[in-house]
Amino acid sequence: MIRAGIIGATGYAGAELVRILLAHPEVEVVWYGSRSYVDQPFARQYGNFLKLVDNVCSDDNLEALSHEADVIFTATPQGLCASLVNDDILSRCKIIDLSADFRLKDVSVYEEWYKIDHAAPQYLDEAVYGLCEINREDVKKARLIANPGCYTTCSILSLYPLVKEGLIDPDTIIIDAKSGTSGAGRGAKVANLYCEVNENIKAYGVTNHRHTPEIEEQLGYAAGHPLTLNFTPHLVPMNRGILVTAYASLKGQNGDAGLPTADQIHAVYKKYYGDEPFIRLLDDSVTAETRWVEGSNYVDIGFRIDPRTHRVIVMGALDNLVKGAAGQAVQNMNLAFGLPETCGLEMPPLFP
Amino acid sequence: MIRAGIIGATGYAGAELVRILLAHPEVEVVWYGSRSYVDQPFARQYGNFLKLVDNVCSDDNLEALSHEADVIFTATPQGLCASLVNDDILSRCKIIDLSADFRLKDVSVYEEWYKIDHAAPQYLDEAVYGLCEINREDVKKARLIANPGCYTTCSILSLYPLVKEGLIDPDTIIIDAKSGTSGAGRGAKVANLYCEVNENIKAYGVTNHRHTPEIEEQLGYAAGHPLTLNFTPHLVPMNRGILVTAYASLKGQNGDAGLPTADQIHAVYKKYYGDEPFIRLLDDSVTAETRWVEGSNYVDIGFRIDPRTHRVIVMGALDNLVKGAAGQAVQNMNLAFGLPETCGLEMPPLFP
Amino acid sequence: MIRAGIIGATGYAGAELVRILLAHPEVEVVWYGSRSYVDQPFARQYGNFLKLVDNVCSDDNLEALSHEADVIFTATPQGLCASLVNDDILSRCKIIDLSADFRLKDVSVYEEWYKIDHAAPQYLDEAVYGLCEINREDVKKARLIANPGCYTTCSILSLYPLVKEGLIDPDTIIIDAKSGTSGAGRGAKVANLYCEVNENIKAYGVTNHRHTPEIEEQLGYAAGHPLTLNFTPHLVPMNRGILVTAYASLKGQNGDAGLPTADQIHAVYKKYYGDEPFIRLLDDSVTAETRWVEGSNYVDIGFRIDPRTHRVIVMGALDNLVKGAAGQAVQNMNLAFGLPETCGLEMPPLFP
Amino acid sequence: MIRAGIIGATGYAGAELVRILLAHPEVEVVWYGSRSYVDQPFARQYGNFLKLVDNVCSDDNLEALSHEADVIFTATPQGLCASLVNDDILSRCKIIDLSADFRLKDVSVYEEWYKIDHAAPQYLDEAVYGLCEINREDVKKARLIANPGCYTTCSILSLYPLVKEGLIDPDTIIIDAKSGTSGAGRGAKVANLYCEVNENIKAYGVTNHRHTPEIEEQLGYAAGHPLTLNFTPHLVPMNRGILVTAYASLKGQNGDAGLPTADQIHAVYKKYYGDEPFIRLLDDSVTAETRWVEGSNYVDIGFRIDPRTHRVIVMGALDNLVKGAAGQAVQNMNLAFGLPETCGLEMPPLFP
Repeated sequence: MIRAGIIGATGYAGAELVRILLAHPEVEVVWYGSRSYVDQPFARQYGNFLKLVDNVCSDDNLEALSHEADVIFTATPQGLCASLVNDDILSRCKIIDLSADFRLKDVSVYEEWYKIDHAAPQYLDEAVYGLCEINREDVKKARLIANPGCYTTCSILSLYPLVKEGLIDPDTIIIDAKSGTSGAGRGAKVANLYCEVNENIKAYGVTNHRHTPEIEEQLGYAAGHPLTLNFTPHLVPMNRGILVTAYASLKGQNGDAGLPTADQIHAVYKKYYGDEPFIRLLDDSVTAETRWVEGSNYVDIGFRIDPRTHRVIVMGALDNLVKGAAGQAVQNMNLAFGLPETCGLEMPPLFP
Repeated sequence: MIRAGIIGATGYAGAELVRILLAHPEVEVVWYGSRSYVDQPFARQYGNFLKLVDNVCSDDNLEALSHEADVIFTATPQGLCASLVNDDILSRCKIIDLSADFRLKDVSVYEEWYKIDHAAPQYLDEAVYGLCEINREDVKKARLIANPGCYTTCSILSLYPLVKEGLIDPDTIIIDAKSGTSGAGRGAKVANLYCEVNENIKAYGVTNHRHTPEIEEQLGYAAGHPLTLNFTPHLVPMNRGILVTAYASLKGQNGDAGLPTADQIHAVYKKYYGDEPFIRLLDDSVTAETRWVEGSNYVDIGFRIDPRTHRVIVMGALDNLVKGAAGQAVQNMNLAFGLPETCGLEMPPLFP
Repeated sequence: MIRAGIIGATGYAGAELVRILLAHPEVEVVWYGSRSYVDQPFARQYGNFLKLVDNVCSDDNLEALSHEADVIFTATPQGLCASLVNDDILSRCKIIDLSADFRLKDVSVYEEWYKIDHAAPQYLDEAVYGLCEINREDVKKARLIANPGCYTTCSILSLYPLVKEGLIDPDTIIIDAKSGTSGAGRGAKVANLYCEVNENIKAYGVTNHRHTPEIEEQLGYAAGHPLTLNFTPHLVPMNRGILVTAYASLKGQNGDAGLPTADQIHAVYKKYYGDEPFIRLLDDSVTAETRWVEGSNYVDIGFRIDPRTHRVIVMGALDNLVKGAAGQAVQNMNLAFGLPETCGLEMPPLFP
Repeated sequence: MIRAGIIGATGYAGAELVRILLAHPEVEVVWYGSRSYVDQPFARQYGNFLKLVDNVCSDDNLEALSHEADVIFTATPQGLCASLVNDDILSRCKIIDLSADFRLKDVSVYEEWYKIDHAAPQYLDEAVYGLCEINREDVKKARLIANPGCYTTCSILSLYPLVKEGLIDPDTIIIDAKSGTSGAGRGAKVANLYCEVNENIKAYGVTNHRHTPEIEEQLGYAAGHPLTLNFTPHLVPMNRGILVTAYASLKGQNGDAGLPTADQIHAVYKKYYGDEPFIRLLDDSVTAETRWVEGSNYVDIGFRIDPRTHRVIVMGALDNLVKGAAGQAVQNMNLAFGLPETCGLEMPPLFP
């Protein structure tokens, strides 16, 4: 059994890790880290785990934990993982960081967008960006994995094949994203009260959301050169789910006459994702909807071509707490520990 | 592998059976019955099963199905199961009926509350009321199991120990129940449109809801004599979950001085449910909430004594589609087929 | 024009007062009190009032305000109004207190249920309980009005005629109430976050909610003697609305044979409420639903008799922020200032 | 008093007309047309109007109605108004059509997007597109007014000044819109059931939603030449509200150096909308949110410039049933009858 520790277990993503790992046949959770609730029963904060988790919460002592665990998940605010990680710890166990600390290779970009100093830039080179479908082989060998953001996972996976194959003009990419409220965390803020979120939709972080450079970096690798794009997240009155609606101009070899057809685009998606266990490619009779992925590790991806504007509209949906956080972290763990990639992640989506 | 057929697979309860059975290690679903969608892919109606279920829907031919299945779940409107069942079928496979056809032993009560003739009263004696925690031994031997209603499961389990032990006056029982909207089914009705249910709460079926006689019959067995009670269901703007708030006057041996204490009541619940895998008894620091059971087969039960009125208020919560329907049906199947009772039902609740 | 000041204008009830008073033809709001946001634009906290309210927030200086206002609404936590009111202030302007400070005549009951000392018990005698439909004449003459609680308004109005006329046994009253989340206020608490409230229903304050003694006191006046009852509130995932489902045993003059009929009960409701502008008596074809009163000052009341248990089930619905708080406060103001009682309160409910 | 008739009064937009007109000081509703509920009390379909509307529903006899009304609102499916209107009717009363029949000047565009033949193309020239802020003077003289669509009102008003002043490149416009579910109407469809819409977000009508040509036509007038754009609507789990997030590349006179600044854009919005009673221009500290406009006739508009991509992101919010339908229809009526434009439309938004 793999011994797993969770730092930040009482956040929504941390608790989702608990849910998934409890049902994982090869894992035992040995540490429920939560600075705010040390020595209190974990199940008192998350009543769903009554009778399932008897443990009390521990602090966030990464050093101590590294002696007891084979893998550590850090589901903590930006900066914490970077401030605690060291060679000693990494020599004993693998770390899967759900924060942004090791997602961006360029420390100056990190510091500009996150407004904090990076405490461990020496690990940026080593850290593997854990988007399994794209970096699978690197993840298998990694000891420090940067688990991608929720919006970014959905955005990158939705657009990656088109960028990689040069079917769209990268400078025209606009990503309009919508997220359920669990993405905003469990902190007690007026803006996230029921009555403030319910019966409302709003954009936030317009032009400056922190997931922007992460998407740009990864899609830039696919394009072969840096790119900039617009990313606008919205807060939707629902618990879970992210929907990405992405726009880009199609690019042809020979002008408009050479624009890719729907069949060609379907073929490209199939080429990249046809064998992916967690990506479901949609046919033209449906569009992506968050209800169909809730509680699961699936990403649903589909598209439409607009013959009038020569743009493609790609829509991707995932559960922000699963494929957008905890599920992908476990997928990364499976890869890094040589387990079947889907182990413990095959729960069907819950609907309604 | 047990071969399972589902009649009525495209209703919410039927689809929840699919979700649970897909993850069940000992079951294979061989028949997705849905009269309305014959020959259409099941996953077109339930996009969550894309990539998981390739089958098309079949009709509701119980006879044909009985040659291919070991167990048949009928998740259909009242009357259908009774109109199709016969000795031949029952000689080949077990039937777990999620409708009300075989829940009430007295055919006249059935016909009075359901306003239809009973087509197979000859099986009423044989049919076992599949409330596993109470009728476990009978379920094990049954070939025709009447799966209890959602409200009734929650109501009966919440009150059973108190009635059985004579701690409350049965004539004072009032059950005020609240249900998520999936309990209303997937039929296209104006009353169940999003804008009609959202931002609203209402009672319905006041004094005449069909689950009333079912609760009365089962609690009457516990009391040792017939009883009448009030049951009032409410429609709540949420997808899943039932909360029962039940009121009854405490009964003492020696007048008020002999009224049961909280400790005594806790002890009684523990006596009946202490070893039950799917019942979680709550301590006095919390009350039952539907969010903690969503997606799981748990029932959470707690209570408060009001020293001013000498009443006990019992609160029970479950997921109407799981313990209130499909989960309990699978629990019954496990019992009837000699499997561990919790097999395939140990998924932790999903929150948020 | 009546000059109105609001202490606690940035709570949900305070802001609802603003909404109603802005449309009131005889009132001008001169003071938007909010200790937390002094000197900040009121509309920054409540964007709905952009372009409608240019004022900044003031502090909660009741003394200063009393020189500028004809009426002061205190929509503040328990204790504040009692701690600030004095003869001087009351000589200059009327006070309508939306807190509980002056609702209970017995100071010891107040202190027992609210766990705070009462700072101004000398005004308890003078204060008028502002349930307009019942205390109309007293309200007209009052200078200190205790605006009833949201649950209490709905509970009392639903049951008052039956208690007053002796049609039910007061000792059997059980009130099961359900409220939208705005009743929980705008404080930043984890329990009221969107993801905690959404897809959930729970009871709270079971056996000890503070509105209990208020209901008991007022219904006790109707009964002619003290009574105790059960009151259980529930939190519902919706913004506004309270639904009360109340149970009581019918009482006859000559045993069961003399139990009141539905017609007799309809007649009694009509006798008490037939001319009330804000009470809508429902016929037997419908039950009360919160969606039909949202945004309005209406209370919808209906009932069912259960011939099997000889109980009556009364259902009442109102908007907790309007008839349950701000609307009723304005109704009281209208009475106290000699305006038509419905002035500024005739907005139709908003649906959906 | 203006006598108003409503054809299609039992749809959501029709019922919202009733709500607004009931509170309008200069209007009396004389006809509640609803083919499905002829002779049934209107308030039985919309319980919010109990005690407010005693009328029964009438049929959709435009001819008969035109003898009794001064203005007729047709809140009916596409095609109905066009099939009934004639010179006789128009000589007696004004018609404000909430359907799309007279919104598009080019009959072939109408027939292509709506897939029905236009029954009265002879009125297309005369009909005035009732977007009050832009066509105010024409509306005043009109007898046949095409009330704009909900998405279109929000989209056009958000972008109009920028297109008109040439600050953006019209060929780069992408409109990503989000709507509450009341926009889908009150028809009994599975897709609009509570459990299907709740906890879900999806795009629909991708590349082919019927509001697209309407937006293009109106913005084309502003640009001075035809344009094509992308419009993608999404269904959001809330009752009311539309949020438009629109993207476009800024256009300068002298290349990038000449790109408009935020101040210049603010100035342009102020120039066009500074005196508009129903448009609220937002400063940079906030973004448009649907909760702030609910129940009101306001449109909230704000924007951000992205200096990295040289795009502007404009966000606009309105209540789809008010400014997006019934409110704007009444605004048109006010103009057409010489009343103050804001008459009966000054209700503050309802929050929460």
